[in-house]
Amino acid sequence: MCTAVYLNKGDKGGVFFGRTLDYDFSYGEEVVITPRNFPFSFRGMGECAKHFAFIGTAKVLDGYPLYYDAMNEKGLYIAGLNFVGNARYGEGGKGKGEIAQFELIPYLMCKCASVDGVIYELSKAVITGTPFNKEMPTAQLHYLVADGDRCITVECVKDGLKLYENPVGVLTNNPPFDYQLFNLNNYRNVTAAERSSDFGGGVQLDAYSRGMGGMGLPGDWSSQSRFVRAAFASANSTKTVGENDGVMQFFHVLNTAFQPCGICQVGQGQEKTIYSSCVSPQTGRYYYSTYESFGVCAVEFEGKDGNELVRYPHKAVGATVVNAKNK
Amino acid sequence: MCTAVYLNKGDKGGVFFGRTLDYDFSYGEEVVITPRNFPFSFRGMGECAKHFAFIGTAKVLDGYPLYYDAMNEKGLYIAGLNFVGNARYGEGGKGKGEIAQFELIPYLMCKCASVDGVIYELSKAVITGTPFNKEMPTAQLHYLVADGDRCITVECVKDGLKLYENPVGVLTNNPPFDYQLFNLNNYRNVTAAERSSDFGGGVQLDAYSRGMGGMGLPGDWSSQSRFVRAAFASANSTKTVGENDGVMQFFHVLNTAFQPCGICQVGQGQEKTIYSSCVSPQTGRYYYSTYESFGVCAVEFEGKDGNELVRYPHKAVGATVVNAKNK
Amino acid sequence: MCTAVYLNKGDKGGVFFGRTLDYDFSYGEEVVITPRNFPFSFRGMGECAKHFAFIGTAKVLDGYPLYYDAMNEKGLYIAGLNFVGNARYGEGGKGKGEIAQFELIPYLMCKCASVDGVIYELSKAVITGTPFNKEMPTAQLHYLVADGDRCITVECVKDGLKLYENPVGVLTNNPPFDYQLFNLNNYRNVTAAERSSDFGGGVQLDAYSRGMGGMGLPGDWSSQSRFVRAAFASANSTKTVGENDGVMQFFHVLNTAFQPCGICQVGQGQEKTIYSSCVSPQTGRYYYSTYESFGVCAVEFEGKDGNELVRYPHKAVGATVVNAKNK
Amino acid sequence: MCTAVYLNKGDKGGVFFGRTLDYDFSYGEEVVITPRNFPFSFRGMGECAKHFAFIGTAKVLDGYPLYYDAMNEKGLYIAGLNFVGNARYGEGGKGKGEIAQFELIPYLMCKCASVDGVIYELSKAVITGTPFNKEMPTAQLHYLVADGDRCITVECVKDGLKLYENPVGVLTNNPPFDYQLFNLNNYRNVTAAERSSDFGGGVQLDAYSRGMGGMGLPGDWSSQSRFVRAAFASANSTKTVGENDGVMQFFHVLNTAFQPCGICQVGQGQEKTIYSSCVSPQTGRYYYSTYESFGVCAVEFEGKDGNELVRYPHKAVGATVVNAKNK
Repeated sequence: MCTAVYLNKGDKGGVFFGRTLDYDFSYGEEVVITPRNFPFSFRGMGECAKHFAFIGTAKVLDGYPLYYDAMNEKGLYIAGLNFVGNARYGEGGKGKGEIAQFELIPYLMCKCASVDGVIYELSKAVITGTPFNKEMPTAQLHYLVADGDRCITVECVKDGLKLYENPVGVLTNNPPFDYQLFNLNNYRNVTAAERSSDFGGGVQLDAYSRGMGGMGLPGDWSSQSRFVRAAFASANSTKTVGENDGVMQFFHVLNTAFQPCGICQVGQGQEKTIYSSCVSPQTGRYYYSTYESFGVCAVEFEGKDGNELVRYPHKAVGATVVNAKNK
Repeated sequence: MCTAVYLNKGDKGGVFFGRTLDYDFSYGEEVVITPRNFPFSFRGMGECAKHFAFIGTAKVLDGYPLYYDAMNEKGLYIAGLNFVGNARYGEGGKGKGEIAQFELIPYLMCKCASVDGVIYELSKAVITGTPFNKEMPTAQLHYLVADGDRCITVECVKDGLKLYENPVGVLTNNPPFDYQLFNLNNYRNVTAAERSSDFGGGVQLDAYSRGMGGMGLPGDWSSQSRFVRAAFASANSTKTVGENDGVMQFFHVLNTAFQPCGICQVGQGQEKTIYSSCVSPQTGRYYYSTYESFGVCAVEFEGKDGNELVRYPHKAVGATVVNAKNK
Repeated sequence: MCTAVYLNKGDKGGVFFGRTLDYDFSYGEEVVITPRNFPFSFRGMGECAKHFAFIGTAKVLDGYPLYYDAMNEKGLYIAGLNFVGNARYGEGGKGKGEIAQFELIPYLMCKCASVDGVIYELSKAVITGTPFNKEMPTAQLHYLVADGDRCITVECVKDGLKLYENPVGVLTNNPPFDYQLFNLNNYRNVTAAERSSDFGGGVQLDAYSRGMGGMGLPGDWSSQSRFVRAAFASANSTKTVGENDGVMQFFHVLNTAFQPCGICQVGQGQEKTIYSSCVSPQTGRYYYSTYESFGVCAVEFEGKDGNELVRYPHKAVGATVVNAKNK
Repeated sequence: MCTAVYLNKGDKGGVFFGRTLDYDFSYGEEVVITPRNFPFSFRGMGECAKHFAFIGTAKVLDGYPLYYDAMNEKGLYIAGLNFVGNARYGEGGKGKGEIAQFELIPYLMCKCASVDGVIYELSKAVITGTPFNKEMPTAQLHYLVADGDRCITVECVKDGLKLYENPVGVLTNNPPFDYQLFNLNNYRNVTAAERSSDFGGGVQLDAYSRGMGGMGLPGDWSSQSRFVRAAFASANSTKTVGENDGVMQFFHVLNTAFQPCGICQVGQGQEKTIYSSCVSPQTGRYYYSTYESFGVCAVEFEGKDGNELVRYPHKAVGATVVNAKNK
């Protein structure tokens, strides 16, 4: 399914956001920059002619950017992840502003400079299940929302809108976030540190390998197991210095949830990690890698002052050949 | 520590070998091509002026290539992995040819065209603990040896030399290989397939996530857990078509054992995956990526007819910037 | 802590209820029969001079039976289990009848002939935290409630009173029941059946032992792990015939959650299973065994028509010596 | 299958031995006392008219006691447990004394006063697969051998006779004992103690239940999982005082490996714990309980000076009724 991570281990406040998209097929993802003057006509929130610019991965449909994850020029990041069976959107017509589910990322990207801003906007609105068009069913999603200081989870469930502080900076899929966070308690014994033999009764058990403190961590790719593994890697991640170090470390942490093709059959198909992203509020760069790529691509957050979407279809890069005669 | 994988899922017999090197510091690794006329003077096996050429990662010390993993021009691959506490080398002077541990990879690369050839050479020799020099203690290693048809594990233990068929194509570290293979039986319940609820008594349990058939797989980075995880990803790996597809899939499988920095403390340091490699007997290319690299490098297996080592120190490549004005 | 089980595997509708009490010390438990005319003066519900008789384990304080578990003459069973940190009782004075937490079991035993009756009574009342006296803090509990047809869980939490169908017939302690039930989904791969090797890729893994289908079940004594283990043993329990067979099977199932002394340190003490009980609505018998007992005791549900508590302090029986000269 | 335990936690050197027998049907077990003058005619070891007396559970066939477990008057205990697929007996005719597998327990009981004595006898003999008769295939077993000071494991495998010190005092079934002992290393993180949250990164995880330090222990009934669980309960078992306390604690420890009927299907049948035993060298008493019994029976080690087997078929005792009018 998907895994989103918020990593705050960089020097001088350096933070990084990003996600995987795990699925059995691709919709044709692109990195899309929405400039400040790209006009939005929100279904229930009216026109928006001028707003914050943002960058992220989207499927562009009929000229509209359906974002999977995005960061705006203020350093606010949102990722939408599958939440099938648990997402229940609200109903309109009750005096609150209405945001259609497919508009949620663009709307908040346009309006909000921070997590606090998102919380304020959501307090005034209801998220509805209004579909983009007749052919597209409403996506069932929940959201990781983060800025340089704070990370929250946003869920629309049958009891209404839920906002959770996200102290571990990780989101995957089902179950609801409070279950995921509670489940983490079951891993309070695991540790990245070297540990003595605690079995009891004077029985001396051998640390025949490095890394045995982590025993008990789950290794499959279900949503709970990816949550635990990414949370452990993130919590224990070493400090990083500067952009390159931070981005690489981010991808290494995120890749603890990476799905190689074959380990998860879905009908006749296979679920795999279609893309992984890392966004840097420090430089504005959107980094990504696709399943087929031998390297990471980066898109500069340029062209903020425009009125048309700037689109860079996801591409796979080849290996860097060191010594080929025709290099 | 380390993980080696032999993946045989390509079309038309396409196979790939490779490994991770996990450690808390680097010795300064290089991709080194040993050409056919690089002269070897083996401690107990005499001079070798002409032999198969080979390519791999090595530390070059006093002009001698101490290989971590290598493939020769016949498509024979060997990787040496830490086996601390269990490796016990033989004693010389008993009528058999003597191969010092540090010479084992070069010697077999020089002489053997296949796994069968390795088995034959080892039947005539004893592997001794003779150190490279006074400063370098003898490494305690065991070996994954593979060609296009077969994969074996080679271990020198207190009961002597052990050769095991390696039906899963994976090697990590302790314990000895027969224990590792037996331990895999404990994971016969896990599956990549979609599974029905089998709990019993009519209790219907929900598949709230894709991938739940893999529950029970271990998620830590100990040598047994990396073995199980890599074996599962490898066994279930989808078929690949051609070089690029095969190499990428190989890295994705191998990365299920990748160690991000922070999850394994070692004294004041941190163990991490220093490099990952993938070698293709189809093209002879040696692919690798370092912890700090945003992409995969490839070294062509060129210059086979020479008498001097050809050395390419490991390098990290940056991200491929898609839209920078100064690109 | 504690584990309660509702087992419905007997022939002709034979069902059994019971529980363990796990703690680091005993309060002095007794089997107590409350006859029909024992007068209750409920704090908020008034006098009750005539009611159903019931039998169970209680601590009698100032002549009042503080029940741990009990069954009444209609075959309604209730067990109260620790729920520390999650139990939040309601407030009185809002127009509903008030039942003090310590009165809950007696009140429902007095009034209700079935689970449906309990649900009805609870719909009209609020459970308050009114303590028994100044020295006794209010116990933080939740409840398994069952009759011959149905089993529910009753919890007072911060969101109010929650009633859950209990399809597995098991209750332990934290977390709230919806979390416990959801967590069971993580064990949908485990099975009591013989299973083929499903690892994938043609890897044949050996069933070196019987019972390997259960691999993945948790073996510790935390409340989630006891829940899973008891639910598995209960779901897969074989059919029983008659009272003795049913009671023995019940104890064997319940004992999958039994805590031997030593496996759970609590400060300077040790948590252990102080008593285990099994109640049969078919015969009215209350069976129990204490940690120190070599056998099961049974108390007949006699003396229903009285007005004084009939008390049988828990006792430990010795081994049955087969051949002693002085037997 | 089976679990044997050697528990050495009693005051004044009080130790206890015993086992479960887990199978899908019973052969008709009896407690059998073999007195000092019961004549043995060993197949390869000649006549034995006078020897140590011993007590244990056996199937008596054609007047011969086929022991499952036994203790002799010197306090030497041996239990034979299933070891199917790994047991390989030796061949006779090589100058060593020959002990048929079915004679092993009687022979050693007759001759040896201690574990040291057993080791000495086994050094002079070979254990052969000679069957009891044509209808009875040779049992494939391995053995826990213990006295008040020492516990060892005895295995006949394809590499010959193996004697292992048994530092945890537990034996179950496959795999061979060295694998079982090595596997225990994977549980060095589990503890009976209260543990702080060690997850890392400042993430505070809640101990929502007592006993969470044991998380990671396996809960199924495979031979490896029973080994781990019994070893943990045994290692952490509290000290006991006197016979009754010791025996009860022994049964509670042993019962962590108890198999309730239903959790392990075998063809059309069910494996369950047919009997559990505890033998006390302090009193000579052989305690046992059957699956159907509500209590523990004890057989005094009487009648040592005789020449005929004294047999007490296993029996099930009922519950002790506290208050029945007809009691």
